[in-house]
Amino acid sequence: MNTILNYQEYFLDYLSENTIKKEPKNLYEPISYILTLGGKRLRPVLVLMTSEIFGGSYEKALDAALAIEVFHNFSLVHDDIMDDAPLRRGKETVHEKWDINTGILSGDAMLINAYQLFENYEGDTFKQLAQLFTKTAIEVCEGQQYDIDFETRDDVTIPEYLKMIEYKTAVLVAAAMQMGAIIAEASNTCKSAIYDFGRLLGLAFQLQDDYLDAFGDPATFGKQVGGDIIENKKTFLYLKAIENADDNVKKQLEGLFSLNPEDPSEKIQTVKSIFETTGAKEKTRIEIEKYTEKAFEVLNDLSISQDKKKILQAFGEQLMNRNV
Amino acid sequence: MNTILNYQEYFLDYLSENTIKKEPKNLYEPISYILTLGGKRLRPVLVLMTSEIFGGSYEKALDAALAIEVFHNFSLVHDDIMDDAPLRRGKETVHEKWDINTGILSGDAMLINAYQLFENYEGDTFKQLAQLFTKTAIEVCEGQQYDIDFETRDDVTIPEYLKMIEYKTAVLVAAAMQMGAIIAEASNTCKSAIYDFGRLLGLAFQLQDDYLDAFGDPATFGKQVGGDIIENKKTFLYLKAIENADDNVKKQLEGLFSLNPEDPSEKIQTVKSIFETTGAKEKTRIEIEKYTEKAFEVLNDLSISQDKKKILQAFGEQLMNRNV
Repeated sequence: MNTILNYQEYFLDYLSENTIKKEPKNLYEPISYILTLGGKRLRPVLVLMTSEIFGGSYEKALDAALAIEVFHNFSLVHDDIMDDAPLRRGKETVHEKWDINTGILSGDAMLINAYQLFENYEGDTFKQLAQLFTKTAIEVCEGQQYDIDFETRDDVTIPEYLKMIEYKTAVLVAAAMQMGAIIAEASNTCKSAIYDFGRLLGLAFQLQDDYLDAFGDPATFGKQVGGDIIENKKTFLYLKAIENADDNVKKQLEGLFSLNPEDPSEKIQTVKSIFETTGAKEKTRIEIEKYTEKAFEVLNDLSISQDKKKILQAFGEQLMNRNV
Repeated sequence: MNTILNYQEYFLDYLSENTIKKEPKNLYEPISYILTLGGKRLRPVLVLMTSEIFGGSYEKALDAALAIEVFHNFSLVHDDIMDDAPLRRGKETVHEKWDINTGILSGDAMLINAYQLFENYEGDTFKQLAQLFTKTAIEVCEGQQYDIDFETRDDVTIPEYLKMIEYKTAVLVAAAMQMGAIIAEASNTCKSAIYDFGRLLGLAFQLQDDYLDAFGDPATFGKQVGGDIIENKKTFLYLKAIENADDNVKKQLEGLFSLNPEDPSEKIQTVKSIFETTGAKEKTRIEIEKYTEKAFEVLNDLSISQDKKKILQAFGEQLMNRNV
């Protein structure tokens, strides 16, 4: 088995071989730009790793890995337009560097290009990959719509929130892992279990992202600590606090989440202390552990060697310790 | 064989059965809205008709017909954002009725939904349809990009223009007809010939659209006569006029195409007379006939009955006479 660093390297080599440089350049340059901006390449690495876990080669998984990464970047380009985001990985977003129309059309071409990459697989593998991809892509769109809808709703429930992050984030991680299993021609039981492993781990990861946004170490958390609070994002922490707070604290928290103070430091401190006193902080930590443990339990159903289970478990632990 | 009216009816029934009514409604309502705005449903009708021409059933072709129509409407939704168009078929465009973000995301979901509709076909048919669809969809995006690029270029050549309209319009007509042949399991020769028939007829139709925009009868041409001249669109007529004009007339025409007068009637009259005196009008007419005849010649290569060839020829003639 290769290491994560190996997979990253193989993937980046394949990406640079396959970065489309063709006409019309106003369509394809933005695609090369966003695809080479960097990032941890977590999703394509998972496709390659899972293929080897189930006895396939990583080489055969490269096209599916690229499809997943192209799709992920398509969603970033279109989401950045919708969020009016100026920066992505510290660089200008596509619609900022070019314009909104370029972002729309280049994004569309990326979504189609992702499908094209599956054409390198034979009949049944092609159909399985394309079908899983379609189901996942639709869910990602639905997740994005729920996220937009939730901004203007004040009655979002926790199950609704969990469904939103599952669709917006977790299913693509799950699909990446199932694609590896499809390419390696793993059994249906394995294909189904590895999907669940990815989904549960993806949920745990996203909940942890919510948690670290408030309680993470600014030195190691990749983003601005308190960013969700500044943006009044109704994360898991917020929804749990609202659920547990008495009427007064609930009103206070809702009040704070209707403000956009120029200096947000006092707001951040007050919100964080509400997250603690309502027990939301502790409950979120428990929820993260619950999903992480559930993910590891799923590994028991896999008919693969203990060594390979350990690789998946180690990957999960590294991911949750933010060392990947 | 059924008539075009029959096919339209079968298609509209199938569309209304399949109009997705699900959650999140802010994602799916705009999709139902645009799909039920109307139109001649030319592309899906072609899928159904071609399937029967090659001995297949129209019923089996309904999913592919719907995929083609969903894709066509996806491209309308995104193009309308890019063109800042307030109206589509006399009704508000999606981004006007909702907002730009809704137009982007609903469009994305439609593109994915089109792929989903092919899943109802078995292994090899699925792959053939999906592959043809992907190739066509990429070309439609490239055609749209060329169209955008041409707006700010003053050195567009006639071959470049023909490639642009081929990609933006003709290949989808061609793909619709080839899909019918794929579903009916026609020979490769037939699949290739019917694609060319659709492509050539699509080109002839688009060139005729350019022609009628200037010289059509306001009573029967669906759009505002002179619309392209008002918008300074470099159509085939314009490019032919520039090619054939002496330096003075060329300068005059380029000057006119840099103006946006409040009352455009005088500009339209002058431009039309330049189109006539430079021979651009006549040369465009000849080009339309050339492509129409080429399309009919391709029919000779088809191993189908004379009756069926006559149906395709009659359809082509109706289309060019704008009676479909």
